[in-house]
Amino acid sequence: MAVNLVPPDPARLHRVAGVDLGVAMAGIKTANRKDLLVMRLSKGAQVAGVFTRNRFCAAPVVLCRKHLRNPIRALVVNTGNANAGTGADGMRRAMQVCAALAAKLGCRPQQILPFSTGVIMEQLPAERIVAGLPRALRDESDWLGAAEAIMTTDTVPKAASARVKLSGGEATVTGIAKGAGMIRPDMATMLGFIATDARVPAARLRAMVRRAAEESFHCITVDGDTSTNDSFVLVATGAGPAAASAKDLAMLGRAVTGVARELAQAIVRDGEGATKFVTVRVERGRSRDECRRVAYAIAHSPLVKTAFFASDPNLGRILAAIGNSGIEVGNLSLYIDDVLAARRGGRNPAYREEQGVAAMKKPEFTVRAVLNRGRTDATVWTCDLSFDYVRINAEYRT
Amino acid sequence: MAVNLVPPDPARLHRVAGVDLGVAMAGIKTANRKDLLVMRLSKGAQVAGVFTRNRFCAAPVVLCRKHLRNPIRALVVNTGNANAGTGADGMRRAMQVCAALAAKLGCRPQQILPFSTGVIMEQLPAERIVAGLPRALRDESDWLGAAEAIMTTDTVPKAASARVKLSGGEATVTGIAKGAGMIRPDMATMLGFIATDARVPAARLRAMVRRAAEESFHCITVDGDTSTNDSFVLVATGAGPAAASAKDLAMLGRAVTGVARELAQAIVRDGEGATKFVTVRVERGRSRDECRRVAYAIAHSPLVKTAFFASDPNLGRILAAIGNSGIEVGNLSLYIDDVLAARRGGRNPAYREEQGVAAMKKPEFTVRAVLNRGRTDATVWTCDLSFDYVRINAEYRT
Repeated sequence: MAVNLVPPDPARLHRVAGVDLGVAMAGIKTANRKDLLVMRLSKGAQVAGVFTRNRFCAAPVVLCRKHLRNPIRALVVNTGNANAGTGADGMRRAMQVCAALAAKLGCRPQQILPFSTGVIMEQLPAERIVAGLPRALRDESDWLGAAEAIMTTDTVPKAASARVKLSGGEATVTGIAKGAGMIRPDMATMLGFIATDARVPAARLRAMVRRAAEESFHCITVDGDTSTNDSFVLVATGAGPAAASAKDLAMLGRAVTGVARELAQAIVRDGEGATKFVTVRVERGRSRDECRRVAYAIAHSPLVKTAFFASDPNLGRILAAIGNSGIEVGNLSLYIDDVLAARRGGRNPAYREEQGVAAMKKPEFTVRAVLNRGRTDATVWTCDLSFDYVRINAEYRT
Repeated sequence: MAVNLVPPDPARLHRVAGVDLGVAMAGIKTANRKDLLVMRLSKGAQVAGVFTRNRFCAAPVVLCRKHLRNPIRALVVNTGNANAGTGADGMRRAMQVCAALAAKLGCRPQQILPFSTGVIMEQLPAERIVAGLPRALRDESDWLGAAEAIMTTDTVPKAASARVKLSGGEATVTGIAKGAGMIRPDMATMLGFIATDARVPAARLRAMVRRAAEESFHCITVDGDTSTNDSFVLVATGAGPAAASAKDLAMLGRAVTGVARELAQAIVRDGEGATKFVTVRVERGRSRDECRRVAYAIAHSPLVKTAFFASDPNLGRILAAIGNSGIEVGNLSLYIDDVLAARRGGRNPAYREEQGVAAMKKPEFTVRAVLNRGRTDATVWTCDLSFDYVRINAEYRT
């Protein structure tokens, strides 16, 4: 039950010149299910990525980090198996997939980026993926089809698109993602892929992907667990206009960040058992780190998240979570949407609980903590902790 | 539904010379319920305490920290209201209770330690507590009665007792506690009180309470939320034998830590919705901090905790949680009780999932992570994340 999330309209997902998409049913874990995506890139495409900080990272993540030193010709994504916790054998199998695809495209295996999502600690059935490659290469998919092919337990495919006017013409930015919260028991991965036809220098692209991640995928949390496979990759094919000037780069960067944010928020809306989409905004802190720490203290507290689920404006839990992050709360104001619920660390005398309940009954609302300690802000998006979260995560294998 | 926890046998809870207990029904929140405890201490008693690190701490915690500079004559504990998030008025009301009790005992208000647990962000009904004091002072309670009087949503009263032979004779150590996990919506507090009749120098007692907390209350987690009122106080009345020699102090310290640990574990066994009591042991790390960080990463992961609930030996989730704590897991071994489930960061080839399920089906088991990076160990006790956790925390006020 996703919160205010519907499948994207394929007509609004603009094609990106220089990217060819193909999907296939490779029977990796389940028959008759799209589980393989190949994204071929035109020659000269620039690629940059950010990856999980989890030290228990998957074989494909290790390979991606390495292969990104080379010109990349294709991305290959499989669902059904995460190839994580699989040791040297897992590395060998991931390379086997890269090698098979490289042979078909006439490039080196080191020019392929592999991505896997699905069951952890089981060996990747590389031969099934390899067998599925010819079908994926023959296929001509649109971005919605690609979004569907990378879903595991997502209930809605996630894709977003934008156009932006640069000095040399209009550029397109289109992306897809899959969730999040380490999804179901063994399903571990947040994947995000965004492509633009703009031409962007490599160093600028690396900065752009980091910035976009910082403002999108790094600002979401479902249950606080970072997966072993989290990957976010930005492709600039160069088939369209150049983004060379500072102004062009800023415009393009904003478009990329906007698409990334829409995808990131879609992941939270489709979080496990989510019934509420909550924006946690922390204002007037001393630093961005401080604001983030406070925002995550709120967004990760199981007590706060169950209160969200219950539409219970439990001020004490929220203030206690903030206090746990090490912040003095004596000067703090707390808003639920526009309702001033607490000020100077205590209840606002004019606040009536019905106001808080009314705001929190909505499927989307904002919790805003004004620290009154500095000038910096931060925002995090999260969902509630519901019965369904426990059911999904507890009952999967029982 | 507490895990392997029954009410303590009153015959095994030894009286502590120099401590007089009295309880009363003061009608603080609910009528006909023991909600007030007064512990009078004999003259010359030494008292030391450790308190919540939450910056949003309650008025009584602020006062306790201050009053501990003086010789303490009594502790007063109320349930039904936490006096947290109550500002200057909350401080005034807590002092009003101290002053009333001090007047009756013929001492200064600064010689009273106040403790409150219950609803957050509502003003303390100090007048009801003051009105209840004469009855509590007339009452003669045993330790079980005292344990019952400080319960809020605990399902089982928590008390433990030990005797220890010192060079000057046998000393008694008896304590009570209430849970934990910020319990129900507005019920926020872990309280622990331990008393011994031994005579202990003030500085030694302060070291003893810190050490005991470090090995007990600081090693438990239900949901990772530190409450606003957490307090743990150790009293040494001096009515019994002296603990002067290093050996005596070590013996007594061990007994105090043992009682504290029993109380701390009882809090986890009675955690919200708990159906499993899980010991998380991390071995062969580089430092205690590192081992603790890994243990808490496991014990706080909602995905791991729901797997505990489901008796699902989900190795991937546990290794991912460890990887999230920033530890390289390539060399790690993982045991569920005595079953070697993973080694060198991957599945143990000889491991069969039935073995893991069999171990985790029990109401108590140990998850043991051997990091193979150093020589230090740490242990944390936790419980699972069940439907009832969500129900208790979501449905309380709806």
